[in-house]
Amino acid sequence: MDIILEILLLLICAKFFGELMERAGYPALIGEIAAGILLGPSLLGWASMNETIEVFADIGIISLLFVSGAEMNLKSFLERRNIAATTAVAGVLVPFAGGTLLGYLLNFSRAETLFLAIALSITAIGVSIRILVDYKQLNSIVGTSIVGAAVLDDIIGIILLGILSAVTMTGATLAGNSLSTGLLIAIAFLGLFILIAPHALRWIFELARKTETHEMVYSVAIILALASAWLSHTAGLHYSIGAFIAGLILGEEIRRDRLLFDSLMDFGFGFFITLFFASIGLLFSFSRETFLSPYILPIIVVAIAGKILGGYLGSRYFLTKAEAFLVGLGMIPRGGIELVVAKVALVGGIIGSALFSAVTVMVIATIIITPIMMKRALVWAEKTAKDAS
Amino acid sequence: MDIILEILLLLICAKFFGELMERAGYPALIGEIAAGILLGPSLLGWASMNETIEVFADIGIISLLFVSGAEMNLKSFLERRNIAATTAVAGVLVPFAGGTLLGYLLNFSRAETLFLAIALSITAIGVSIRILVDYKQLNSIVGTSIVGAAVLDDIIGIILLGILSAVTMTGATLAGNSLSTGLLIAIAFLGLFILIAPHALRWIFELARKTETHEMVYSVAIILALASAWLSHTAGLHYSIGAFIAGLILGEEIRRDRLLFDSLMDFGFGFFITLFFASIGLLFSFSRETFLSPYILPIIVVAIAGKILGGYLGSRYFLTKAEAFLVGLGMIPRGGIELVVAKVALVGGIIGSALFSAVTVMVIATIIITPIMMKRALVWAEKTAKDAS
Repeated sequence: MDIILEILLLLICAKFFGELMERAGYPALIGEIAAGILLGPSLLGWASMNETIEVFADIGIISLLFVSGAEMNLKSFLERRNIAATTAVAGVLVPFAGGTLLGYLLNFSRAETLFLAIALSITAIGVSIRILVDYKQLNSIVGTSIVGAAVLDDIIGIILLGILSAVTMTGATLAGNSLSTGLLIAIAFLGLFILIAPHALRWIFELARKTETHEMVYSVAIILALASAWLSHTAGLHYSIGAFIAGLILGEEIRRDRLLFDSLMDFGFGFFITLFFASIGLLFSFSRETFLSPYILPIIVVAIAGKILGGYLGSRYFLTKAEAFLVGLGMIPRGGIELVVAKVALVGGIIGSALFSAVTVMVIATIIITPIMMKRALVWAEKTAKDAS
Repeated sequence: MDIILEILLLLICAKFFGELMERAGYPALIGEIAAGILLGPSLLGWASMNETIEVFADIGIISLLFVSGAEMNLKSFLERRNIAATTAVAGVLVPFAGGTLLGYLLNFSRAETLFLAIALSITAIGVSIRILVDYKQLNSIVGTSIVGAAVLDDIIGIILLGILSAVTMTGATLAGNSLSTGLLIAIAFLGLFILIAPHALRWIFELARKTETHEMVYSVAIILALASAWLSHTAGLHYSIGAFIAGLILGEEIRRDRLLFDSLMDFGFGFFITLFFASIGLLFSFSRETFLSPYILPIIVVAIAGKILGGYLGSRYFLTKAEAFLVGLGMIPRGGIELVVAKVALVGGIIGSALFSAVTVMVIATIIITPIMMKRALVWAEKTAKDAS
């Protein structure tokens, strides 16, 4: 079908369902993903994932992370790096252990078990951030801890995916380089980027202010976001990491120019980010058999319990009980990485369709359940804080 | 190459060259097209036209026409419909006659002559409008006349392309339907659209104001632009016509909300429109032989003289001499339609590579020459007006 029409339908449907969800008191992203599922190959079949829509979705996640980074307080983000580190590690270890145990109990092969453990480990940073934005928690102590941990998750993800491809020999498709090389490149890039980018990005941004072209600052902000994202992608990390760091660095400059900030928010949330979440929905292909997979329930339970426990344990030392619980909750969402890995593993014959289906359903379940649980937990945390004071 | 990288390179290069042009006192679009030529297949080969970039370019022309329509004064646009009509007709007839004469003099076949006459007839509305925007002439009597005539040109273009495909039998590729059916559908669509859209679009837009979602009005404006564009495309017209009418209709509402208007301008001029003009550059593939075509000079002369004379004759009854000359100048740019038709005619064996090359060079020449001539003419017209008063 005509791609402009596909984009148009996704946008209309996602905005409509998103509005319905907001009116019901939940984040729009649930409605946006639902729009993708409805229009996608399993139901109406009016839209499907193709190269063009993937580019729109990529720019969507890039702008989501960029504007979120720009909205964040760099100082308080850096102050919480210790919470982020312990939360990331514990938040991966517990669900990984849970997945391994589950694989053992279900009599999975070694490769299947490893796949399952990894598919349970990596938080989808885009989904977590979007929920925090919608609940206005991005700059709370809980929010910054979750975001920091989710960023580190991506680096841990490289290690895990490297191990998976080394063990299962599906090398090229999962990671371009061997584990150690890949990790080295990523860390070298991050180090260099964090060293150079603050000066370079701010210098280019200030230069843009002095140009004659009216929309130049806006264009340069987008260029810097895309360029940083592309660099981090080339270094083996996800697009979102580079975009997020660029946003963090330029945050103060961007927030000072209210018109620019609003315009970039519109660029993201009014167009590309909506298409990103709708495209997550497009990735789900399911039939009636999908929901008959016996692994669905145990995997969902481990996915939720693992991240809550891991996030709680990782942050409890620094935070109150209620806050640590919220951090665990915020780490629950799984997303695109899991779906891509599952697809590769299915095509490569590492896992069967029952496990593939279960992981697919788990991803969508965690995305839907997180904001619902979080809403209640936020009310409860506020009440607890009030009672304490 | 990675499409995100291609988009990034196009954006960086186009903004840089555009800024250079603006500093030299000329519209940025020349620099943007130059960026496309530089990065395109004939020179560096770092980017090329593909399905995804075409979608970005389509959204670019759609947003250009939409925001230009929104910037325009609907009332004065409608008041000048008579100038627009006579200008459109004369502005097509004169270069068409010139092309026919030229074909006769050059001993072209009947099909070649018809192709040449048509390739000289249709003004590229996107380029004309962009130059008017850059020179702040969109709402002048000259600007509204040019835009109105360029819109009508698109409808005349259907007739001409219908005749071409009927004569040369390259039917399916140039126009989906026969001439009479195609024209009937287009006119029926325009009639219905002009009847229904003012109520429907404004009603949807007002509805969007009442929603909970923060960026909803922005999203709905983009949705209405894309939907109107897609409808007019489906009816056999160019995307730009529907987007322009939608912009005209919603103009007052959009202009009243300054933040929204600025944000939509950024969406267009800060991102998609730049990619549209850069993509025009990508369409040029040339070698050293291209510039050896003996037809280049005569065709460029007829292209420029034909539109100046046609535009002048068509509008002189209503306007002063200087204004009528400016209208003729503003109609000179040829663009995407000519390039696509030329490509189809070349592949279909209707024209040879020498004529193809000459039309290609003519398109780029008219785009570059128009703003340069217009700048001088504007100064001259202002002086004339001052002397007269």
